[in-house]
Amino acid sequence: MAASLPTSVSSATDHVFSIERHEQLQLSPEDRQRITERTKWVLDSPDPPGFRQEIIGSIRNAVFSRKNNKLGSAQPPLACVGEFLSSVFPILNWAKDYKVSMFKNDLLSGLTLASLCIPQSIGYAGLAQLKPQYGLYTSVVPPLIYSTMGTSRELAIGPVAVVSLLISAMCSKVVNPMVDPVSYNKLVFTVTFFTGAFQALFGLFRLGFLIDFLSQAAIVGFMGGAAIVIGLQQLKGLLGINHFTTKTDVVSVLIAVVKSFHDTWYPQNFILGCSFLIFILITRLVGKRNRRLFWLPAIAPLVSVILSTLIVYLTRADEHGIKIIKHFKGGLNPSSVNQLQFNSPHLRESVKIGLVCAIIALTEAVAVGRSFATIKGYNMDGNKEMIAMGFMNIAGSMSSCYVATGSFSRTAVNFSAGCQTAVSNIVMAITVLVSLQLFTGLLYYTPVAILASIILSALPGLINYTEAYNIWKVDKLDFLACAGAFFGVLFASVEMGLMVAVAVSFAKIILNALRPRVEELGRLPGTDIFCEVDQYPVAQAVPGILIIRLNSGLLCFTNANPLRDRILKWVTEENGKEVTKRPITGIILDMSSVNNIDYAGILALEETNKKLLSGGIKLAIASPRWQVIHKLKVAKFVDKVGRDCIFLTVSEAVDSFVGSRFNGPGNC
Amino acid sequence: MAASLPTSVSSATDHVFSIERHEQLQLSPEDRQRITERTKWVLDSPDPPGFRQEIIGSIRNAVFSRKNNKLGSAQPPLACVGEFLSSVFPILNWAKDYKVSMFKNDLLSGLTLASLCIPQSIGYAGLAQLKPQYGLYTSVVPPLIYSTMGTSRELAIGPVAVVSLLISAMCSKVVNPMVDPVSYNKLVFTVTFFTGAFQALFGLFRLGFLIDFLSQAAIVGFMGGAAIVIGLQQLKGLLGINHFTTKTDVVSVLIAVVKSFHDTWYPQNFILGCSFLIFILITRLVGKRNRRLFWLPAIAPLVSVILSTLIVYLTRADEHGIKIIKHFKGGLNPSSVNQLQFNSPHLRESVKIGLVCAIIALTEAVAVGRSFATIKGYNMDGNKEMIAMGFMNIAGSMSSCYVATGSFSRTAVNFSAGCQTAVSNIVMAITVLVSLQLFTGLLYYTPVAILASIILSALPGLINYTEAYNIWKVDKLDFLACAGAFFGVLFASVEMGLMVAVAVSFAKIILNALRPRVEELGRLPGTDIFCEVDQYPVAQAVPGILIIRLNSGLLCFTNANPLRDRILKWVTEENGKEVTKRPITGIILDMSSVNNIDYAGILALEETNKKLLSGGIKLAIASPRWQVIHKLKVAKFVDKVGRDCIFLTVSEAVDSFVGSRFNGPGNC
Repeated sequence: MAASLPTSVSSATDHVFSIERHEQLQLSPEDRQRITERTKWVLDSPDPPGFRQEIIGSIRNAVFSRKNNKLGSAQPPLACVGEFLSSVFPILNWAKDYKVSMFKNDLLSGLTLASLCIPQSIGYAGLAQLKPQYGLYTSVVPPLIYSTMGTSRELAIGPVAVVSLLISAMCSKVVNPMVDPVSYNKLVFTVTFFTGAFQALFGLFRLGFLIDFLSQAAIVGFMGGAAIVIGLQQLKGLLGINHFTTKTDVVSVLIAVVKSFHDTWYPQNFILGCSFLIFILITRLVGKRNRRLFWLPAIAPLVSVILSTLIVYLTRADEHGIKIIKHFKGGLNPSSVNQLQFNSPHLRESVKIGLVCAIIALTEAVAVGRSFATIKGYNMDGNKEMIAMGFMNIAGSMSSCYVATGSFSRTAVNFSAGCQTAVSNIVMAITVLVSLQLFTGLLYYTPVAILASIILSALPGLINYTEAYNIWKVDKLDFLACAGAFFGVLFASVEMGLMVAVAVSFAKIILNALRPRVEELGRLPGTDIFCEVDQYPVAQAVPGILIIRLNSGLLCFTNANPLRDRILKWVTEENGKEVTKRPITGIILDMSSVNNIDYAGILALEETNKKLLSGGIKLAIASPRWQVIHKLKVAKFVDKVGRDCIFLTVSEAVDSFVGSRFNGPGNC
Repeated sequence: MAASLPTSVSSATDHVFSIERHEQLQLSPEDRQRITERTKWVLDSPDPPGFRQEIIGSIRNAVFSRKNNKLGSAQPPLACVGEFLSSVFPILNWAKDYKVSMFKNDLLSGLTLASLCIPQSIGYAGLAQLKPQYGLYTSVVPPLIYSTMGTSRELAIGPVAVVSLLISAMCSKVVNPMVDPVSYNKLVFTVTFFTGAFQALFGLFRLGFLIDFLSQAAIVGFMGGAAIVIGLQQLKGLLGINHFTTKTDVVSVLIAVVKSFHDTWYPQNFILGCSFLIFILITRLVGKRNRRLFWLPAIAPLVSVILSTLIVYLTRADEHGIKIIKHFKGGLNPSSVNQLQFNSPHLRESVKIGLVCAIIALTEAVAVGRSFATIKGYNMDGNKEMIAMGFMNIAGSMSSCYVATGSFSRTAVNFSAGCQTAVSNIVMAITVLVSLQLFTGLLYYTPVAILASIILSALPGLINYTEAYNIWKVDKLDFLACAGAFFGVLFASVEMGLMVAVAVSFAKIILNALRPRVEELGRLPGTDIFCEVDQYPVAQAVPGILIIRLNSGLLCFTNANPLRDRILKWVTEENGKEVTKRPITGIILDMSSVNNIDYAGILALEETNKKLLSGGIKLAIASPRWQVIHKLKVAKFVDKVGRDCIFLTVSEAVDSFVGSRFNGPGNC
């Protein structure tokens, strides 16, 4: 082992590429003292926060994180109240800087939104098995409330397809809307109230992380499946079928469609609906190709409604089989406080459906709001959004609205139309209100098939096969959750699809903890860096020493015993190989990946140490993390393995075992 | 920044302790090339095994690991058969080397075992609410089968207290033994069959890891709770109560005891039982103090039985209220094949009880066998043990035995008595058989209170408060699982105790995945090593750069968004501090602890990168693991962040950002 220092830095390059020439110096007493000093750093680290301190800390962070900034700055009470009010109602902040030029943009985008929103709301109300006016009500009150309390500037609020499907699918299991529409309405309003209540609670207690439990992959699959289910249900409108199934799965719907062919059906609905569907899809294609014509697909639904109403009125086609909306009540939102039922036998289901709707509605809105906030470059406070949504839905439940949330397609239209603030939502709400007062009579002759085609035209945006393909490429287990949600919604029910997705996602975490991963490390040539030999084929194993990294984040009861067996088997295998290779005399456990260890993990380490010692092999621990070294000290494992066998880095452990150290420029 | 190389190695010590004097050299082009070269190693690593390959690999490992050693060595068919037979029946291996001297030791230990086993078996049969002879049957057939198929040399097979309690508690819920003892017996035999079937299946399919799901902490709590429940049930025997509750929880038992005081009760049972209990405990104390008198506590139960039988016989105490066993059928094990019921209405419960008993029985036996194998220094094959246990219980179910397993106390006696092989089990079985044939009549006058005191004397060994205290010190969550099992068994039922323990253990894994852990790293003075500043207070942060290590083993949907928010908040906080400090211009993410990442994790990284770039801060990834870098490449994140921002180590990333590198001897 030569002991010559390189004379210049420029020869570093040579050292990188030649394995034979890397200098090894005998370990001097100073080197040993240095290693001991660093081991002392490891063993004398302060105690990590205990279990109780961690819990108190998390609660404190969650509850007090906003107030922390205000501590220490004494403010007059009035200013405190003002600050509180403007944090609850962000409109008080941005309204001060509002300009006339902004209003021009907001007016235009608001009107564009309204033209898209009116036909969609009527259609989505039908999807939720409610009368058409409830969709329009839902586009009045919730956007107004949101514009005062929300922080997103582009988010367009109103009824959306997937939540309408959820309401329809889950509430119709409790009360059949065909049989008892009054009770059904009461149930929907009660569910809306609970949805708002849960959303506000999530925001107030900063439980936003619960929304993350529905992973993005699950959402993609769920939305795709829901879109197909919604599309199949539009067959009722397109074909003009009277009696349809309340079930949502593909098989039941197709059976109902086939059965309907035996009844009388009128192809005119189908032809009318399909023609306008093609019209709307063509305008959308044009709008995509030419960005300046973004308004074309936005007004296409309204144009279709107007045209088809005229056609039916002029040709009296309703007497020839076309189904029309007929009369629906307009006017201001009536109060529905008396329709909220808190002591009905369906209370438990109302709460359950409210929770599911709350999570789905929030997931969509927060995702949409956040992506546009990132594009525009401002910060959106997730918890404030949840509180705003919560209060919006609570207020909506008391004014004949059902669950409203942010819609991606309408928000995109809003953005393209150049909206500046949430005033666009206010403009849209006022426009819808005016229409409710003045124009509901004009929609008497609107064919139901048109609403079906408007809903169908919105569905391709929900089926995100590009993202599903990306998920497949990146993570197969995530794709399993995605597919599970998709097929669950398609073939079982919406709740089943969600449960499958959540179960697969959590099973992924458990599965990750199960697998005992150990990797052999080798030295990268010319360096002091030790890396996995599988990942870096240039890495060379050190003769006589087995360097193993435990790749499990948590060394616990699920993987401790398999890990122990794996290590011991490895030693037996290595020693059973060719005689010319040096037998293993030491094992270095690189614990840099192990963040925590439990009792079973410590027992497994003790057993491994005992067995290795009985075979004359020394065990060393390198790079232990904070919690791990603390627990090893408490469990007296450090004494069992020896204080001289704990090292700060793998490199020092190797040097100590081999008796020499690497020296050269350009290492590490 | 000086550029002088130290002149001698001995000045390394000075460098360790002086922060100001560590040399920084300007990064030369060769240094930059070296860093680029290493980044290339990271980015050009081979693809890790895909999802399908991993699954196929696991299955192959599990199924074929034994046969791998035999591949390539062609053997004649007869030898193959012989090898297969001797792998299934290990007795064929060790019987060849059996010597007369070994038999001397085995005979002695077998007789000692039998003397302890006979009274215990009768007592445990009563605990399982079976007639006394079934306990003795269970000490005949299962040990004989085990001695031919098992690999442990010390394990003493027979009925044990906890499994007897399980059988009694769970089977009596299905069929009340007071009301219908014949059906109860049939149920017990069927359960025993299923227990054996499950154990054999676990062994054959190498599903041994399922046993680990009941963590050691949960076992400690469960055994403690079960011991107290068993002890309380002995009050029935001690107080001579006729009518007792079938429930096992503390409250019901105490109520039954209090109620019994209103009936007539005879204090003689209590006095007799307690006196002999004190006698047995005293002998145990003596045996502990003086290792050479180990046989004293072993024969004490038998001596108590003999003495108390004599006392009752001579004083005719059974006419004065002492409850006695009376007649019980002796003779060879009768066949019970006709009592196994596979198409009864209780089939589902039988299977469920069989599964629970299989897991508990295996956990105890494998733990006991393994600890003694470690002491004696030989290897015990866990899967072979499970197969042996399985067949032993299947055979037992067909010969009037109930679930038998390895008992720690009897194995300890076996070991202390100097047993050499499993022949001690054979000797014990034959002795019990002979007793069944010849001596059952002698036990007519044996008081029931004695059996209760024998069982009570065995219980302190099951309550392991030292280990519970260790668990408390090491891991609070593990202690929660332990306490959950303990109180669940005590106050609800045995199944509830088990379920609570398993639920808490798995919740621990989920909880670990939830918490987004980020730690700031700093440079250890005089080195190139970067460590957590919390764990190593000597570490110094690098000005202008924030080095963050993600401490979650799996960056997934549960912690991805909180992590992103945490990093962004950190940047805002750091930049909001005193003006004199340098603003953050770069963030280095040390991903050495992150073993895997899912789709949500990648999305979170992309969002973080986007936001940081918009704020003019560069993001770098250091030390990515195999799966992580592969997924980052597939998701094109590497291109988004820039190929020049992926580094092999944190040190290189810091050098690259800062523009200089550390140089000095004794680093890393």
